[in-house]
Amino acid sequence: MAPVKARPSPDVATLVAGIRQGNRLLLARAISRIEDEAPDAQALLQALFPHTGHAHLIGITGAPGTGKSTLVTALVQAYRARGLTVAVVAVDPTSPFSGGALLGDRVRMRALSGDPGVFIRSMATRGNLGGLSKTTGDVITLLDAAGFDRIVVETVGVGQAEVEIATTAHTTVVVEAPGLGDEVQAIKAGILEIGDILVVNKADLPGTDRTVKALEAMLEMGRGGTRTVRHHGHLLSMELPAASSPSPQAGWTVTVLKTVATTGHGVEALCGRIEAHRDWLQESGELDVRERARIAHSLENIVRATLAQRMARELPAQALQDLVDTVRQRRQDPYSAAQQLLATLTGAAVSSQEA
Amino acid sequence: MAPVKARPSPDVATLVAGIRQGNRLLLARAISRIEDEAPDAQALLQALFPHTGHAHLIGITGAPGTGKSTLVTALVQAYRARGLTVAVVAVDPTSPFSGGALLGDRVRMRALSGDPGVFIRSMATRGNLGGLSKTTGDVITLLDAAGFDRIVVETVGVGQAEVEIATTAHTTVVVEAPGLGDEVQAIKAGILEIGDILVVNKADLPGTDRTVKALEAMLEMGRGGTRTVRHHGHLLSMELPAASSPSPQAGWTVTVLKTVATTGHGVEALCGRIEAHRDWLQESGELDVRERARIAHSLENIVRATLAQRMARELPAQALQDLVDTVRQRRQDPYSAAQQLLATLTGAAVSSQEA
Repeated sequence: MAPVKARPSPDVATLVAGIRQGNRLLLARAISRIEDEAPDAQALLQALFPHTGHAHLIGITGAPGTGKSTLVTALVQAYRARGLTVAVVAVDPTSPFSGGALLGDRVRMRALSGDPGVFIRSMATRGNLGGLSKTTGDVITLLDAAGFDRIVVETVGVGQAEVEIATTAHTTVVVEAPGLGDEVQAIKAGILEIGDILVVNKADLPGTDRTVKALEAMLEMGRGGTRTVRHHGHLLSMELPAASSPSPQAGWTVTVLKTVATTGHGVEALCGRIEAHRDWLQESGELDVRERARIAHSLENIVRATLAQRMARELPAQALQDLVDTVRQRRQDPYSAAQQLLATLTGAAVSSQEA
Repeated sequence: MAPVKARPSPDVATLVAGIRQGNRLLLARAISRIEDEAPDAQALLQALFPHTGHAHLIGITGAPGTGKSTLVTALVQAYRARGLTVAVVAVDPTSPFSGGALLGDRVRMRALSGDPGVFIRSMATRGNLGGLSKTTGDVITLLDAAGFDRIVVETVGVGQAEVEIATTAHTTVVVEAPGLGDEVQAIKAGILEIGDILVVNKADLPGTDRTVKALEAMLEMGRGGTRTVRHHGHLLSMELPAASSPSPQAGWTVTVLKTVATTGHGVEALCGRIEAHRDWLQESGELDVRERARIAHSLENIVRATLAQRMARELPAQALQDLVDTVRQRRQDPYSAAQQLLATLTGAAVSSQEA
């Protein structure tokens, strides 16, 4: 049990102080501790939480092949030129930040390395259909407490991820590329609903204007062009209204920007558009709405994780499988079985299983 | 409170007997009662559950514009020609079954109406990004207990829905249409992972062979062509291994079929392929794996819904919002707040909130 050859593990107080002072090495170690779900991970997050709330969270999502990693690199450079610090969290198995890089990507990314105002971290996705990592929100907490001005979360726009990024980010940028037919645009109606800003990258390719027009037509068809995804809690079933704002849905128009990330064309305009969205969020009161949704989402995740832990502790895997089998064999109905699980979860005595 | 002019509401025993005897009117009323979350809904489901397990569940998913509703109609006719009864659950806002029909679709669908061996029900989706309705699983239970040989669940292949359909159905059919470029295929890598059978519908259009080849190339690249989505429980965190089967992943090859639903071309072959998959599921033991995953998913949903109900009952919406606000204002960290929620949920006294 006792560490033998390992470096002495810094305690929570050391990590907190180091992170607050901009020590990148301690920040990286703290992130690993979060990802490893170390015993003191929660204490670390609790200690850092009061120092959060500074960073603007930018979600960048899009299909593989849209060049969004190159775009993220260029965007980080644009922010650096503005004197702002940036952390990048890549939750995308195809991202060069996550190791899926082509040579050209790596060369471009190298432009970022060595800059103390930039911090890059890749995280594993959860499951094949995307989704943020379980600890993405916690890592964002660390980066926020570390004082970064902007935190960019890059996700692949498939399945679950796009819903989660809309709940996590303040500003969500959806990246497209030319050459997608009209029919395909329809597929992506859902993805469009999460975008505060749409980008057609690789805008030097043929078909760019057609794609831009198709996206603009879809936005027209949509609900006045404001994203509609909110917190969809399954556990807290919270609907968070915009208490502090007269009409937070109004006042922001989703527009389609063109970029060529490899040359940097249009990237400064994208940066400006993100900043304009940030200003709008603050002035309209919508920032408050989104922060509250984010917190509700986070509370729900913690509650669920705690219940799952409790379940795993109280109920051995075999017992769970046996319970599934009783239902499989129709010896018990799912409601009675769920009742048993609930009793285990809540520590109550098993109550009557009569209907 | 007392009903004044309404028809007398049949009790659970009447509904159960009627459903078991093939009374379609009582079946429809029972489904409404489930959807309305009536007080006796659970008792009804518990009473019907022992009579389930007969139906083969077929999920049909695909983007809008792939013609999958027309394909469902044709598939139902193919099953009827085989003498099997079929229920259709349309969880797709763009489906003609759900009211989104073009005139041609309605005409084709009329071919099904009046046939007592066919039952069609449309359900609302949950949220903008798809997903099965909360009660889809319960409606399937009713249809299964009503004795239908095959139950077809039609969903739009966007976002959350494709994961849920893979957990819900025994056989998942993913419908494509020609004209999608290679880049787009990459987007849909996730969707392909759920398909037991891939169909290129509208196979009389140009570009069909190119789409078929692109899909086959993707399958080659994939993991030997067996779907990989299993139960991804967040609460039960169950991994259900194939206890009863030596190698359930092997032995089934996902193939790409071509259909023209409007003429019926290829539909009989699709029907045969689904039946072949059903046979394989039974012989390989994979059916057991999928049934167990489905039950685990269902248990988790019930547990979660019950906890959410309890939460809503114990904690007024305003109190929940106030709690979110304390976190928003950094007066409390999310872990302490979640602790409070958990205490409410489990009925325990609020425990120490020290880290």
